[in-house]
Amino acid sequence: MIAEIITIGTELLLGDVVDTNSAYLAQALKDFGINVFHIQTVGDNPDRLKAALSQAQSRSDFVFAVGGLGPTADDITKDVLAKLLGVDLVLDPPSYARLKTYFEARQVDMTPNNLKQAQIPAGTRPLANPKGLATGVWSESHGCVTILLPGPPQEMVAMFEAQVTDKIQPKDAGTLYSHTYRFLGIGESHLDDALAPYMKGANPTLAPYAGNGEVSLRLTARASSPEEAETRMSPIDAVIRSRFGHALYGVDVPNMATACHQALLVHQQTIATAESCTGGMIAKALTDHAGSSQYFMGGVVAYSNRAKTDMLGVSKACLAQYGAVSPQTAVAMAQGAREKFHTSMAISTTGVAGPGGGSAQKPVGTVYMGLVTDDLATSFKLIDLPDHYRTRPMIRHMTSQYALFYVLKALCEVSDL
Amino acid sequence: MIAEIITIGTELLLGDVVDTNSAYLAQALKDFGINVFHIQTVGDNPDRLKAALSQAQSRSDFVFAVGGLGPTADDITKDVLAKLLGVDLVLDPPSYARLKTYFEARQVDMTPNNLKQAQIPAGTRPLANPKGLATGVWSESHGCVTILLPGPPQEMVAMFEAQVTDKIQPKDAGTLYSHTYRFLGIGESHLDDALAPYMKGANPTLAPYAGNGEVSLRLTARASSPEEAETRMSPIDAVIRSRFGHALYGVDVPNMATACHQALLVHQQTIATAESCTGGMIAKALTDHAGSSQYFMGGVVAYSNRAKTDMLGVSKACLAQYGAVSPQTAVAMAQGAREKFHTSMAISTTGVAGPGGGSAQKPVGTVYMGLVTDDLATSFKLIDLPDHYRTRPMIRHMTSQYALFYVLKALCEVSDL
Repeated sequence: MIAEIITIGTELLLGDVVDTNSAYLAQALKDFGINVFHIQTVGDNPDRLKAALSQAQSRSDFVFAVGGLGPTADDITKDVLAKLLGVDLVLDPPSYARLKTYFEARQVDMTPNNLKQAQIPAGTRPLANPKGLATGVWSESHGCVTILLPGPPQEMVAMFEAQVTDKIQPKDAGTLYSHTYRFLGIGESHLDDALAPYMKGANPTLAPYAGNGEVSLRLTARASSPEEAETRMSPIDAVIRSRFGHALYGVDVPNMATACHQALLVHQQTIATAESCTGGMIAKALTDHAGSSQYFMGGVVAYSNRAKTDMLGVSKACLAQYGAVSPQTAVAMAQGAREKFHTSMAISTTGVAGPGGGSAQKPVGTVYMGLVTDDLATSFKLIDLPDHYRTRPMIRHMTSQYALFYVLKALCEVSDL
Repeated sequence: MIAEIITIGTELLLGDVVDTNSAYLAQALKDFGINVFHIQTVGDNPDRLKAALSQAQSRSDFVFAVGGLGPTADDITKDVLAKLLGVDLVLDPPSYARLKTYFEARQVDMTPNNLKQAQIPAGTRPLANPKGLATGVWSESHGCVTILLPGPPQEMVAMFEAQVTDKIQPKDAGTLYSHTYRFLGIGESHLDDALAPYMKGANPTLAPYAGNGEVSLRLTARASSPEEAETRMSPIDAVIRSRFGHALYGVDVPNMATACHQALLVHQQTIATAESCTGGMIAKALTDHAGSSQYFMGGVVAYSNRAKTDMLGVSKACLAQYGAVSPQTAVAMAQGAREKFHTSMAISTTGVAGPGGGSAQKPVGTVYMGLVTDDLATSFKLIDLPDHYRTRPMIRHMTSQYALFYVLKALCEVSDL
């Protein structure tokens, strides 16, 4: 089966928005055994969109057209598909009812433009939007299925997962099961070198991904049952854990903060944060999770030295002798947070995130983290980052990641992950 | 002038890599007055790449083909262009000399594959690569210029800037100048309805964008000088400010936090944060910016009631009488933060981010913000969010946005933006 993706929107042709929808869909379709041979982007222009849709329909089994389902004059995708099909747009009653409820609840008048969001080409099927008002479309003609999805990524993903995946699942090829292993502190080329033989396998498959300072491995088996899939995957699982367990922070978790959130709940610990250079990122990452109030009591963002003293009880002597960016201050900050918030653990960060503020002794990228628990009070220095990571956003991001990783390691063994 | 971008690589069709080159090129070309009508992505397949190149050449003045210039068997772009031109690949002597120096310096033997990087189709012009070994190509045939650029973004950008920009500079078409207006608290359809006549204009153009709970307008004029561009844009600028000034938070700023950062610096105020439901997001958003230490002293993430009392001095009576989620507690939190951190302003948030924790009186989405300055101590209630925004991430995001907007409004007039 062959699919083609068309992303629609003048903002994409102006370079104002980077198209992430295509990569999401391409990756998802691969798991359904569907090959993508072409991706196209066109603007909000009826003639060019029509030509792109026709061309795609002539050479593909599935065409995913993303964007242009909204209420404005620029949103033309449904009109163009209707013209290609030679039909009119008709109102989808459930979509209309939803739209009406929405505007009534807000006591706002519905503009005629808004009605467009509830229309679909006659003879096609509506795809409900779990995260927005624009209805999607499933249309079959001349042996090709054309699927219209909304442009905002969260709406596109939600509609794809809820409305499309069950319709494109292959019938008897078995089902795909997979595990994703997430690592901090090793490079893709290390995984690549050590696991090359497994990466050439057909079932299971093993593929590395890298991005945003970390790497992950996706292990996927096609099987007729979850048990069969696990049997196929377990030898490689064992190799991954034994070779790279030291850098593994989670299996089938979306990110470090989630791994840490789960471990804090399971181990029934409470935590507080004391952040300087990360400026609230760690607290934010933990409180992203519903239920974090069970273990997260609070934190101090101690950006100024005075705040470190007043709010966390770091002694002026410590700041004077070792400096704000030092292992001693990091530990004192964590101790202060643990006491002030009455928690079992605390984590702190203090460092030079740049671009200014560096010195010969403490260049940009010098960061210390403090970890205090019932049993220990210790500090960690952030690893030397590669040149292209030595930017303010990456220094802050990597500091948050490592700080959470140290919390996780204080709570869990590799075999728990 | 019309350009088409073709990005080449099976990794793009597998979704393993997000294509950022297209957005870069599209944005850059716009500034040269070159319109991009199509972007295509194809894999490392000679037939499909040949078809894509032919189609693009038939409908464009410039074709930018990005990727596939490297040394491996997958790198086929130059072969395919040579076949389309009916010529052979020939060695470009300066590129070859560079390659030779590179390998000699490393005392590594050059493989025959590496030679490919120094080859170009006969009759075309080489484009030197400032950041890598693969040579680019400038080829003119049948009224279309085809430009081959390397795939790694830093090489692509460097080659484009050093070798291409001077060759595509338009002679007399004028230059594009634009302003982006960012709004919080109005919908795209409202802008659309009120500004529809201007959105049909050719010079200047006006286009709305929506995403992540806010909308923006981009106003673009083509002119021979910045002054002429401003003259063209000023009538629409005036309409935008008078109609939607109440919701305008910035012009030519990337986001709310940056607008707030700039205003705090300009007005020489200092600020502290007291966050409950946003859990550090506001502090994080401000400290994303280098230089925030000039005005941001710190903040407390007071997630538990005890933290609100101990760390911010909110009275137990206030919490008991009005509850943690109340205008009174919001103001008391901000007052506490302002005192503890010795700042001129403080902003606070307290609310029910969900999904749990809601009640009949205070359902999920009930959020109060407190703002305390030298002159005022006041609270704001978060607007009722649309259903599909009433999720934990969006409640937290919108709370942060509005909190920063109230800070901004306390500092600036619409005419300052």
